[in-house]
Amino acid sequence: MGKYFFTSDYAEGCHPKVLEALAAANMEQCTGYGLDPFCEKARALIKETFACPEADVHFLAGGTQANLTVVCAALRPHQGVYVAATGHPNNHEAGALEHQGHRVLTLPTADGKLYAEQVDAAYRQYAEDPFNEHWCQPKMVYISQPTEVGSLYLKKELEDLYEVCRRHGLYLFVDGARLGYALTSPACDFSPADLAANCDVFYAGGTKCGLLCGEAVVLLNDALKPDFRTIAKQNGAILSKGRLLGVQFAALFTDGLYFKICGAANKEALRIKAALGAKGISFVTDSPTNQQFAILTPAQYEALSENFELGLTEYLPGGLLNVRFCTSWATDPAQTDKLIAAIEAL
Amino acid sequence: MGKYFFTSDYAEGCHPKVLEALAAANMEQCTGYGLDPFCEKARALIKETFACPEADVHFLAGGTQANLTVVCAALRPHQGVYVAATGHPNNHEAGALEHQGHRVLTLPTADGKLYAEQVDAAYRQYAEDPFNEHWCQPKMVYISQPTEVGSLYLKKELEDLYEVCRRHGLYLFVDGARLGYALTSPACDFSPADLAANCDVFYAGGTKCGLLCGEAVVLLNDALKPDFRTIAKQNGAILSKGRLLGVQFAALFTDGLYFKICGAANKEALRIKAALGAKGISFVTDSPTNQQFAILTPAQYEALSENFELGLTEYLPGGLLNVRFCTSWATDPAQTDKLIAAIEAL
Amino acid sequence: MGKYFFTSDYAEGCHPKVLEALAAANMEQCTGYGLDPFCEKARALIKETFACPEADVHFLAGGTQANLTVVCAALRPHQGVYVAATGHPNNHEAGALEHQGHRVLTLPTADGKLYAEQVDAAYRQYAEDPFNEHWCQPKMVYISQPTEVGSLYLKKELEDLYEVCRRHGLYLFVDGARLGYALTSPACDFSPADLAANCDVFYAGGTKCGLLCGEAVVLLNDALKPDFRTIAKQNGAILSKGRLLGVQFAALFTDGLYFKICGAANKEALRIKAALGAKGISFVTDSPTNQQFAILTPAQYEALSENFELGLTEYLPGGLLNVRFCTSWATDPAQTDKLIAAIEAL
Amino acid sequence: MGKYFFTSDYAEGCHPKVLEALAAANMEQCTGYGLDPFCEKARALIKETFACPEADVHFLAGGTQANLTVVCAALRPHQGVYVAATGHPNNHEAGALEHQGHRVLTLPTADGKLYAEQVDAAYRQYAEDPFNEHWCQPKMVYISQPTEVGSLYLKKELEDLYEVCRRHGLYLFVDGARLGYALTSPACDFSPADLAANCDVFYAGGTKCGLLCGEAVVLLNDALKPDFRTIAKQNGAILSKGRLLGVQFAALFTDGLYFKICGAANKEALRIKAALGAKGISFVTDSPTNQQFAILTPAQYEALSENFELGLTEYLPGGLLNVRFCTSWATDPAQTDKLIAAIEAL
Repeated sequence: MGKYFFTSDYAEGCHPKVLEALAAANMEQCTGYGLDPFCEKARALIKETFACPEADVHFLAGGTQANLTVVCAALRPHQGVYVAATGHPNNHEAGALEHQGHRVLTLPTADGKLYAEQVDAAYRQYAEDPFNEHWCQPKMVYISQPTEVGSLYLKKELEDLYEVCRRHGLYLFVDGARLGYALTSPACDFSPADLAANCDVFYAGGTKCGLLCGEAVVLLNDALKPDFRTIAKQNGAILSKGRLLGVQFAALFTDGLYFKICGAANKEALRIKAALGAKGISFVTDSPTNQQFAILTPAQYEALSENFELGLTEYLPGGLLNVRFCTSWATDPAQTDKLIAAIEAL
Repeated sequence: MGKYFFTSDYAEGCHPKVLEALAAANMEQCTGYGLDPFCEKARALIKETFACPEADVHFLAGGTQANLTVVCAALRPHQGVYVAATGHPNNHEAGALEHQGHRVLTLPTADGKLYAEQVDAAYRQYAEDPFNEHWCQPKMVYISQPTEVGSLYLKKELEDLYEVCRRHGLYLFVDGARLGYALTSPACDFSPADLAANCDVFYAGGTKCGLLCGEAVVLLNDALKPDFRTIAKQNGAILSKGRLLGVQFAALFTDGLYFKICGAANKEALRIKAALGAKGISFVTDSPTNQQFAILTPAQYEALSENFELGLTEYLPGGLLNVRFCTSWATDPAQTDKLIAAIEAL
Repeated sequence: MGKYFFTSDYAEGCHPKVLEALAAANMEQCTGYGLDPFCEKARALIKETFACPEADVHFLAGGTQANLTVVCAALRPHQGVYVAATGHPNNHEAGALEHQGHRVLTLPTADGKLYAEQVDAAYRQYAEDPFNEHWCQPKMVYISQPTEVGSLYLKKELEDLYEVCRRHGLYLFVDGARLGYALTSPACDFSPADLAANCDVFYAGGTKCGLLCGEAVVLLNDALKPDFRTIAKQNGAILSKGRLLGVQFAALFTDGLYFKICGAANKEALRIKAALGAKGISFVTDSPTNQQFAILTPAQYEALSENFELGLTEYLPGGLLNVRFCTSWATDPAQTDKLIAAIEAL
Repeated sequence: MGKYFFTSDYAEGCHPKVLEALAAANMEQCTGYGLDPFCEKARALIKETFACPEADVHFLAGGTQANLTVVCAALRPHQGVYVAATGHPNNHEAGALEHQGHRVLTLPTADGKLYAEQVDAAYRQYAEDPFNEHWCQPKMVYISQPTEVGSLYLKKELEDLYEVCRRHGLYLFVDGARLGYALTSPACDFSPADLAANCDVFYAGGTKCGLLCGEAVVLLNDALKPDFRTIAKQNGAILSKGRLLGVQFAALFTDGLYFKICGAANKEALRIKAALGAKGISFVTDSPTNQQFAILTPAQYEALSENFELGLTEYLPGGLLNVRFCTSWATDPAQTDKLIAAIEAL
């Protein structure tokens, strides 16, 4: 028997109810390319959940694919995207947005978040430069909720950011690869409807929230809607068996499964956080969601690695390590207990 | 109860054995991005099946994605791809290869195939033009096996084509979205190993051959191997739960499942073909595989559509219709019987 | 002393008056990037000449650059351009439009022109296909006036084409690399204002009409205007010494120089055409402009090549040759006389 | 009479000898696209000057065009370029490299230069990351000589940088838009041959060194040579009257004109620098070349602006201004005298 993984929220397959739904639908015949009744049902459930009846909902297979397709559909060739230095497109997408022709306009961040004032200042620097026609034109703000480092935007922060975006004609794009963990965090002060009311496009991630694969892109701003399917197709992002995504998302958004499983994962993560904190261990950021980035000594890391796979993320100055503890729908509370015992024994 | 679909080979989910494998593996923890033991096992099985131990095997989610990723990885910016007029990238990919920057160099075809002499002549026209540095440079030949219209390359045709390609420094890329139907067609005179020995890169399609999704790209020519994963990532083509593809392909290539199910589908298609032929109905091309493109009158189409969904593909001159009859692993022979009875009653 | 060139209209430098203007302006200091008084003056002259006071005028260095920049600025990623099979972007730009990500939608042509009915039919085939979201979306019609084979659109043909374009939401883009020869052809039945009233964007070419380099892009449709300079910059198409183009175009559009020199070139070309015709020599197309594409025997070609450089363009069936005779502002009538004498002596 | 410009080195036309050469060659007929005898002669002169007989030399129209064409020709899609934060492609090219699909990997700089240790550290961070296949792959180092802020690489710095590049398989690309000012600076300790021996590709700029337009790209590494002309054509970077560049560069590299005029410009700039320094005015960087970036108070700037156009480049903290004083071949020493008098009178 191998070590138990706390490395990521994509270490297992899908939630059993999702698997059941796939099995139940398996022999039902339907049309392809996401035009099937399963996708239709999933779209309706998502629009209801996020209280956005006028939205267009598209199902894509993964997060980088969602990011590049949205950016490709939204921007003209000379336009770029503000992204926090810790943002996924800035580091971990092999230059996907640049491959689409768009510059990533990196902004510094201490906690993984972008703030309204910061975006306002950056945009005004652009807008007020008399030679700005020689610059890449900012046109979108990309944020992730929760962020790549586990932190969470509060409602007021989102509203302020969106206000700045609208004032400057910037699209606000919320990467919700782990959105379920944000919405069910004890620190969360906004509803699904609040999110949909405060951005131009977001996606509710499935891959990291209980599905085999899949991200539900929700287009709120009408300007982003035309021909999205063709642009997705052009980027290889339309599955012929689109049902695979429809069936899964319909299951995920039935009876609040999405919220139940993400809430449970947060609970396990926060137990780990508390245990680490009780040992005086500090964190790279203060995360109220399913990812905890703890600062360990090599000895601590080694000790915990005896029985657990953890996510060694970064070598920090002073010989310390940034280690990710990540939970998911699949996390076994008994294993969390064992991990906590190991932490207490450090 | 609705009509029975003979429209496509992607109307159902996946083969029951594939679903079983997914269920069996579901709670096993593993690493992400296709580096897991399931993918490793599937790679080994595929390399064994196609007798290409030195190949690199990558699992992507769909056919257009496979096409654009391979072309992106293989070509320099000024290079283009010869494609038959009926070829998938020429019509049905929303300009995916052009979006990657590459020109599709369309060649005429009567039967969906490209022939060695034709490619040789086209390339020599390019090579001998004194101003060819103002042209897009041909660098790849894309074919599909079987073709989009159901026809099949014979072994000698493939060998001749590959010989021309090597002579002119062109890569030969075989789209095998439906490769299983080619390899198990009664008309097929080549083995899996013969295919792998006569091209630079091919893929064995899963989506249309029994999987929920997935194409196995097999890189044979060493020049195509470096950094393929990074280029796939950049195009949003790496699933974080890569296991989804590994588990499925491992099941598909275990105990010859791939061949069994595709062979059975061909059998059903050829029964339909025979019935249509017996009624004097002719075909757009002579197909020995799972897709039959029959030329029907509107009355015939209407009559058969009473109980069956068929693929109306094209309006032909003279008011006739090009109608696709397509079978798959999921085709119920009892339904084929009923369809044949309906054909006989025309 | 070498042979006299009738190969092209870019075999010499620039018209002496243009050189004079460059010399006169040489030491005048000004700002860069096309924002100088010379460019302003040239813009005003062009807008006056074409009776389009609301247009935006941008000066670029060459024709392929103008084509790719206009297409880049006008289209979304999934959109393509209808181009005649003989069109410059279809053959002689090394895949420049595809490099910008856009598909060239080639239409057949007998005389180098696209016709309203043909474009209408092609677009309707797209628009009526139920699966057209899997196709590249046509969004622009590219034509050249005169065409690459010397032929000329009549006013009614342009009007009809533009009507079809507007009906279907297609931009009409007129490549006027040799526009001066069109406007001064004896066969021309439209004015500069007529041209500007019947398209969304055109350019008046300078390189082939008396300048060292330069094309004046005239944006008529407001939708094409935003950020054109930034998109040009991004494509390396903004000269820091933009004055080079402004000074030249101001000279070209002063006192009707453009029309005088192009008219004179046409006159020489038509003398050659008459001489060839008088010998019973036929033409690939009937051209009323400065390029004549004659069908010669190898012996005829050889005989004329003794004293003249001619443009061997294509090997025709039956061993015949497509040979270009091209005149320009620089063509010496005495040399035309000698060429005609040689033709008469065939 | 307007104010005298010290704003840039592209405020006038071309050096009189270049204009003379254009006039002398004007009526000589030749072939197009840079295959003419003028270009041939210019290539030979440049290869001799830089002692690189095996190099390929291509003439392009401008700096951004040269940058994007070289990068397009050199890199595979997933590869990026290290650029100093002050580097031209990082700020002033409207995202040209990203439009070609490549990520600009920005490195910090205090003086406009990149250092060997810095590049080595950045590359090792990439190379040693176990997940680097999810990153953009560094493949090129772009530097400018002199830099955009006027500073100069010493010979040893170049050698060290090139050593690191070769060790890691990175191309070293030297943007020499103002190379003439580097080579003739009193601080310069390397020869033209030293430059050519210590990079993979560079260009000798003409636009900012006495020509109407033009950059001579010198490809030294054989890997960069294949099909460069086709890639330039595809980017709209081949002039049909290529002679325009050939004639000018031949004049510039005859009798050391390039060095004479750039040396003279440096002399004027250094007189200005001395005058500013004598008044206790400090500089953003210490520049030994034709651009001086001085830190002025608004009052100083206003006073000098009474009779001179200067380049207000940046608002600095504390209300100070970064002001560019730029000289060129065209700078009138009498005007420098007046400017110095004005500086002394501050």
